[in-house]
Amino acid sequence: MKKDILENLKIEKITKNYLKAPHKKNEIHEADAELIDFGKESEKYLAITTDALVEEVSTGLYDDPYLIGWMLAMVNFSDLAAVGAEPLGLLVSISFPSTQDEAFMARLTEGISDACKRLNTFVLGGDTNQGKELFLSGCAVGLVPKKSAITRIGAKPKDKLYLSGPGGLGSIFAFLRLSGQDYKMLEFFYKPAARIAEGIIVREFASCCMDTSDGLLHTLDTLMRLNHNKFILNNDWERILHPVVQQVCRAQNLPPWLALAAVHGEFELCFTISPQNEKKFLQRAALNGWMPILIGEVASGEGVSIKTQEQLIPLNTTLIRNLSETAGSDPQGYITELLHIALEAGIW
Amino acid sequence: MKKDILENLKIEKITKNYLKAPHKKNEIHEADAELIDFGKESEKYLAITTDALVEEVSTGLYDDPYLIGWMLAMVNFSDLAAVGAEPLGLLVSISFPSTQDEAFMARLTEGISDACKRLNTFVLGGDTNQGKELFLSGCAVGLVPKKSAITRIGAKPKDKLYLSGPGGLGSIFAFLRLSGQDYKMLEFFYKPAARIAEGIIVREFASCCMDTSDGLLHTLDTLMRLNHNKFILNNDWERILHPVVQQVCRAQNLPPWLALAAVHGEFELCFTISPQNEKKFLQRAALNGWMPILIGEVASGEGVSIKTQEQLIPLNTTLIRNLSETAGSDPQGYITELLHIALEAGIW
Repeated sequence: MKKDILENLKIEKITKNYLKAPHKKNEIHEADAELIDFGKESEKYLAITTDALVEEVSTGLYDDPYLIGWMLAMVNFSDLAAVGAEPLGLLVSISFPSTQDEAFMARLTEGISDACKRLNTFVLGGDTNQGKELFLSGCAVGLVPKKSAITRIGAKPKDKLYLSGPGGLGSIFAFLRLSGQDYKMLEFFYKPAARIAEGIIVREFASCCMDTSDGLLHTLDTLMRLNHNKFILNNDWERILHPVVQQVCRAQNLPPWLALAAVHGEFELCFTISPQNEKKFLQRAALNGWMPILIGEVASGEGVSIKTQEQLIPLNTTLIRNLSETAGSDPQGYITELLHIALEAGIW
Repeated sequence: MKKDILENLKIEKITKNYLKAPHKKNEIHEADAELIDFGKESEKYLAITTDALVEEVSTGLYDDPYLIGWMLAMVNFSDLAAVGAEPLGLLVSISFPSTQDEAFMARLTEGISDACKRLNTFVLGGDTNQGKELFLSGCAVGLVPKKSAITRIGAKPKDKLYLSGPGGLGSIFAFLRLSGQDYKMLEFFYKPAARIAEGIIVREFASCCMDTSDGLLHTLDTLMRLNHNKFILNNDWERILHPVVQQVCRAQNLPPWLALAAVHGEFELCFTISPQNEKKFLQRAALNGWMPILIGEVASGEGVSIKTQEQLIPLNTTLIRNLSETAGSDPQGYITELLHIALEAGIW
């Protein structure tokens, strides 16, 4: 992992004191969930991950308690989906002020419960505390066959790049919400469900996989760095972006690819498939009623580029990723910065 | 679980929306960690638990960052110890303000790391966020043989009541710390290490087990309710209490059993052993260089009592447990209330 991503530098500071567990199969950053070998006699790895909702709540991005609960579960299960794991369940650590409205907390736990039901899984346990502000952290645990566990590493030049479903809803939801515009329509569409069932197919065919929890461009930047290859995204926005996203971008005069650039994602899976696996993969997906979206390809080289009919346009994804650290708390400044990047790159 | 414990009513409100997982072996409150049956082919349960440090940090009870980190790991591993599990590792979810001192965070992660090393286990992963205040939540995961997993349920009349080590350090540490007295000596002694090795012995012999994370009286009250039996504590304070605790109680003119009543514990294991298992258990413990402390016994009936030479004195443990909810944020009021209970019960 190169040293120019501010978020990674922060993580490195926090984790530098920790010893690597010998039974942990992935290095840091190399998989969405930790893969734990808990015994030679088992044919499976334990997949485990923890994710808190902090900025999403403190910025007001999520204010509907049901959505907060739903997302707390889904952000964690999405990490399991990306390694191909089947969930055993979720643990929930919640802290809230004694003054917190009871109806709010009831809706929040309803969101958690419904998210688990949607994925045929369960809340296994938790911890409840009294704190000055609302704080929520989850931990999802599951199992994945050792022979099919999938990480962020393994993409090769000529691999095809796929997305499990249309992108951009996460960014556009955040854009409308934080810029104070009407987002009711987006609220209707923005209810991500972790791609557990798709992950179970993906794990049999893909060379690498990662979710789009921080938006597709963040995902591509991370995969590019870890795999030391160039990731090329087709400018085929009508295929890649959710119809509602296209509509908002047209109405707001925004370059459509910007909907893939903000740090709030839609929890699709982004993965690479070798040319020899592609046909069988698409057959299996179709048999399960699923239409993965071809969004680009892997090539030798480095960086993330957008492919137009005429040329490959390199994107400064380092700059885009660091925006969330440098301008993250100012939504309008964030969008203006993104528009500057679009102008400079010549893709507006 | 009776309805008169305020903390349990709060937990019930939070959890009432959740479906019981069919592969979870324990009901809510019935075990320190969740026991998950992850497949018929496995001879082990997954043991998993989550615990956050909130009040301990916000009240200033822990202000040394190393202790905060150490305790974050230990409170979670202690729950694994109480079900007899061997840890696979810890996940850590941390949120802190961007203004947080880097040296503070480095000491905190050193504490986490050292606690894991002490137990020969590892930090497996985590999540780092930026929030308004420091927030820490952990999740410990481990394995326990299905045939020896131990819960809070199973105590029978005539069972002997044991503690893995001397009690009272947690309460006295909190008492000195929060009443603004010199606690440096206690800081030296108060560094609980989860009783993983002892739990592995206990699981082969005990009828029930729970840690003393909230102090011994809280543990006895919980076990009494779940097992529908009377739990009798001998007034053998010289054997039961840590020497430093006895010394502080003498110096401060406090009834010694009060050191078992406050809601901050020392993370020992409290467990019951049937008369027929007792000899073999003590032999095995001695072979491992461990001296468990006999602290009382189980009898038919209900409630928690203190046994003096003359009589059994019933303790109102409901009142004692609810103190942390009703007077928890006022240390002096809390202690005064406890002293009133001691006076009324006639054990001062």
